[in-house]
Amino acid sequence: MSLPSWNDGAARTAILEYIERTTSADGPEHVPVEERVAVFDNDGTLWCERPTYLQASFIVDRLREQAAVDPGLAEEPVVAALLAGDLAAATGYGLEAVLEVLLDAHAGMTTDEFAAAVAAWATDFRHPRFAVAPRGLVYTPMLELMDLLRSHAFRVFIVTGGGVDFLRPLAADLYGVCPDDVVGSAVEVTFERRDGAIVLVRTAALSGSPNEGAPKVSAIHARVGVRPVVAAGNSAGDREMLEFAHTGHRPSLCLVIDHDDPDREYAYPGAALTDPHAEPIAATAERFGWTVVHIRSDWSRVFA
Amino acid sequence: MSLPSWNDGAARTAILEYIERTTSADGPEHVPVEERVAVFDNDGTLWCERPTYLQASFIVDRLREQAAVDPGLAEEPVVAALLAGDLAAATGYGLEAVLEVLLDAHAGMTTDEFAAAVAAWATDFRHPRFAVAPRGLVYTPMLELMDLLRSHAFRVFIVTGGGVDFLRPLAADLYGVCPDDVVGSAVEVTFERRDGAIVLVRTAALSGSPNEGAPKVSAIHARVGVRPVVAAGNSAGDREMLEFAHTGHRPSLCLVIDHDDPDREYAYPGAALTDPHAEPIAATAERFGWTVVHIRSDWSRVFA
Repeated sequence: MSLPSWNDGAARTAILEYIERTTSADGPEHVPVEERVAVFDNDGTLWCERPTYLQASFIVDRLREQAAVDPGLAEEPVVAALLAGDLAAATGYGLEAVLEVLLDAHAGMTTDEFAAAVAAWATDFRHPRFAVAPRGLVYTPMLELMDLLRSHAFRVFIVTGGGVDFLRPLAADLYGVCPDDVVGSAVEVTFERRDGAIVLVRTAALSGSPNEGAPKVSAIHARVGVRPVVAAGNSAGDREMLEFAHTGHRPSLCLVIDHDDPDREYAYPGAALTDPHAEPIAATAERFGWTVVHIRSDWSRVFA
Repeated sequence: MSLPSWNDGAARTAILEYIERTTSADGPEHVPVEERVAVFDNDGTLWCERPTYLQASFIVDRLREQAAVDPGLAEEPVVAALLAGDLAAATGYGLEAVLEVLLDAHAGMTTDEFAAAVAAWATDFRHPRFAVAPRGLVYTPMLELMDLLRSHAFRVFIVTGGGVDFLRPLAADLYGVCPDDVVGSAVEVTFERRDGAIVLVRTAALSGSPNEGAPKVSAIHARVGVRPVVAAGNSAGDREMLEFAHTGHRPSLCLVIDHDDPDREYAYPGAALTDPHAEPIAATAERFGWTVVHIRSDWSRVFA
């Protein structure tokens, strides 16, 4: 049976009907294979983003290591707040200040060293509430959806607001998504020759904008080159990406994950990080008629 | 038979032996599937770039249309040189000045309009010497090589110095390469809503650096996310990309196309556009021991 972890209901029906009418031969709403592109946000859409983004945990763990050998670091107010696990206090110093600390933490590493650090961290990390590794935080119903799309010749991309180099070393194993099919925020790298070999070294500077809001649309153009017909997100930062799929000339499927299950996961509205005043995504979804996926009622199982 | 348009010789043998020793199970030089990434330059490596880049022809045709309704345009010195087909005279005004004219030509178009313009142009274009459409300018031996690599689970990417949005509408049909597997120079786009639909509009500003030299390496990291093990190019602008593959920790295959066949194609050394003083790629290839592909002797057939 398709989508076994989805309960019968409006969301499951909308997905199955969409795939049926766009991929059955010769239907009036048929979508050619080359336009079957699906884009998924990551944090809160494919894996759990509470109590904090996994990438934030990764960086805080790094700061803790650095502070152990450089005690002065822990006295910087933003770092102190992050080490205390108080993200609200940290962001009280401004998003710019937090971003600077976060980007500084791995500056100077080669891209290979960074990928190895991510992989090592993912092996050790355990979620504070669920006591599982990152694999245990992936939403089983979304894995089923990605597989179902692939089996109908859709190409599946992840378009995350998080760091592309953080997610890539994990995405193949967790989601079956190749590194080149992960789009995200990036840092500038410098080109160097060391001991005769070319390496790329991470700087503390973001390359372009954080990948949220309208930049997600430009990034999809730059990286995928095809307007998606399927898009899934969970926050106001995904609005433009969903709207990009919605306003193309092909039939589209736009999904918004509603975190309404405090017992099995969390309950919170999905806000944009870079624009706290953006329209709530639930309101946007209702206005456009997008399909809302309620975790509590639409998913019979949340995690593996 | 593999590579039927390749003559027996050092290049064909190097390719076949490389694929054999890296993809046969359990060999000491085995390359895991996830690292089987091959990158190909486009102009002069996959299709003929003489007497001028196809993209230059595309843009000059556009300038000709624009000059027909705006005669003042044809009086601008760079435009006049381009319309006269005198690229040397045009570049005499400086690469910056030429680039500005080239980028201006399609500024203001939506990305969808631009893709349609490329497709329409490619239908009409005929090569001045060979009287063929772009398909007739593709090197048959290189198509065979890409297919052979794919049949051994290599993923094939094009990393062109030319415009990514110019090549994408053609690459699936000509090379079997999806839009998201084409990496190239790009222009900045602006995000707009028109009649309720999101569109992206081309500006006259380049996004980052032209994709030649070291920027090809950064672009491969940003877009592919895996260090390639196979790389092919034909000019000094491909040196860093080839060197990136060469200096990884896996066995690599670096190919340099030598244009030495004036009868069937052209004879010229491959120079970098952005760095005319760069070491000739033939000298670099010899120093690193890369495989040189001589069109005259290594290819039994050049075009389809």
